[in-house]
Amino acid sequence: MRIGEPGRERPAVRVAEGSYVDVSDVVADFDGDFFSRSTPEHLAHLATVAAERAAAGGARPLDGVRIGSPLARPHQILCIGLNYADHAAETGQAVPDEPILFTKSPNTMVGPYDDVRLPRGGDKTDWEVELGIVVGRRARYLDTPEQARAVIAGYVLVNDVSERAFQLERGGQWSKGKSAETFNPAGPWLATPDEIDDVRALGMWLDVNGKRRQSGSTATMIFDPCTIVHYLSQFMVLEPGDLINTGTPPGVGMGFTPPVWLRAGDVMELGIDGLGTQRQRVVAPR
Amino acid sequence: MRIGEPGRERPAVRVAEGSYVDVSDVVADFDGDFFSRSTPEHLAHLATVAAERAAAGGARPLDGVRIGSPLARPHQILCIGLNYADHAAETGQAVPDEPILFTKSPNTMVGPYDDVRLPRGGDKTDWEVELGIVVGRRARYLDTPEQARAVIAGYVLVNDVSERAFQLERGGQWSKGKSAETFNPAGPWLATPDEIDDVRALGMWLDVNGKRRQSGSTATMIFDPCTIVHYLSQFMVLEPGDLINTGTPPGVGMGFTPPVWLRAGDVMELGIDGLGTQRQRVVAPR
Repeated sequence: MRIGEPGRERPAVRVAEGSYVDVSDVVADFDGDFFSRSTPEHLAHLATVAAERAAAGGARPLDGVRIGSPLARPHQILCIGLNYADHAAETGQAVPDEPILFTKSPNTMVGPYDDVRLPRGGDKTDWEVELGIVVGRRARYLDTPEQARAVIAGYVLVNDVSERAFQLERGGQWSKGKSAETFNPAGPWLATPDEIDDVRALGMWLDVNGKRRQSGSTATMIFDPCTIVHYLSQFMVLEPGDLINTGTPPGVGMGFTPPVWLRAGDVMELGIDGLGTQRQRVVAPR
Repeated sequence: MRIGEPGRERPAVRVAEGSYVDVSDVVADFDGDFFSRSTPEHLAHLATVAAERAAAGGARPLDGVRIGSPLARPHQILCIGLNYADHAAETGQAVPDEPILFTKSPNTMVGPYDDVRLPRGGDKTDWEVELGIVVGRRARYLDTPEQARAVIAGYVLVNDVSERAFQLERGGQWSKGKSAETFNPAGPWLATPDEIDDVRALGMWLDVNGKRRQSGSTATMIFDPCTIVHYLSQFMVLEPGDLINTGTPPGVGMGFTPPVWLRAGDVMELGIDGLGTQRQRVVAPR
């Protein structure tokens, strides 16, 4: 985890439900440099340090502290579109033959409980609960999806907030509707792969104002995380600390008849099994 | 300019045709932090330091040194598509009503004389001479294109190398064909706006193996630099040091009948008035 005010977050390790240990004297930040060195041994050492400190009374309550994104601003945020067959259907688009790639500006990343700000001039802001992959090492031209396993540092919960008017009505490329400030809440924590039993069997959900809107499971992903990482490495070099949003299950606002868009004052709550929950207040443009 | 081996470039100032002054004791790097502080006064100071050192015999020849990209790896590389009416025509696409945005991975940036490596699995690699804008300060929701003037730190020559098979035949978004390693040669230098008489009247050209392929002028751009910066700031927050590639004039390989694609051993040479020239050898995938 990363704890503290925006831009001054300190690295931390979650040691129990509701508490954490500060490790900022051991780790400078959870950034590209950290992930490039994050061997299983390195992570085991960090876990040992955290456990020792917790045993010695060094755990602090998460209550009342700001939780930032669990990784520093990445070199790039890559996103896979239409990666759930039933979500593709609800948007009226065909299931893709191969992963669809689009990008978000890296400075969209905020903490899991920060406000999401509606963009000026947009009126079709939408939600997307997603499984995020954090890249653990530099990767190019991986030979097989199996090789991608060692490239994945961990998983995070992400809300891939989207302005559909910008994405779909202002020119043919999607990045335009994905990159407004605050559009990528991430966290509260990163789970290493060993902490997730089966990444293809994680329940996921999203509520708006207490009403269940998205409900799904990573079981219905078309392209799984290793396939995605292997695939992307054929087109670009993945860097340690890069974030890959892997697509959303059904239930986005665009999919309802009539569509449902976010308004100032709305509250989004979302979660994925093993990756915690998020809560964002939607606020007016400024 | 930035001089030195890849990843170890040192900031420098070009003081005359073919020579430079090292300013690495005054400036850590030409990165986001530098550009955020690059007021006219700051740049004037840097120019004074360079002139004094040159007068004292501190200039060194560029001959024989590697020239890197003139800015550090940016937070994002944004690109405007189809921004020259005659280029849109040659690709068979309509002139856009508003700027088309796509992105490149920031780690594609290399120096102006570095090799361009063909991507594995691609067979339609293409060239694009472009005017690059370097963002000088954080910008969001600019009110007018005129306000964008103060946001532009300078201009650079860019080759927006593209793999058309990945861009157009592998899913609907363009980033996939724009992000292979070495696909964004930039430099040799950044020119501040005061060094460019009229950014809407710069001749630009690109040769492949000594044959003129692209020949144009920024006079035929559809959306000018201030319009582009103002426009992008409505959709995302621009960060100091961000790079914006502003589109290419006619003469890309895709536009010929039959199309002309780059092959290992080819040599690209390109230039824009006031921004210097580049030369890249095309090398085989590895």
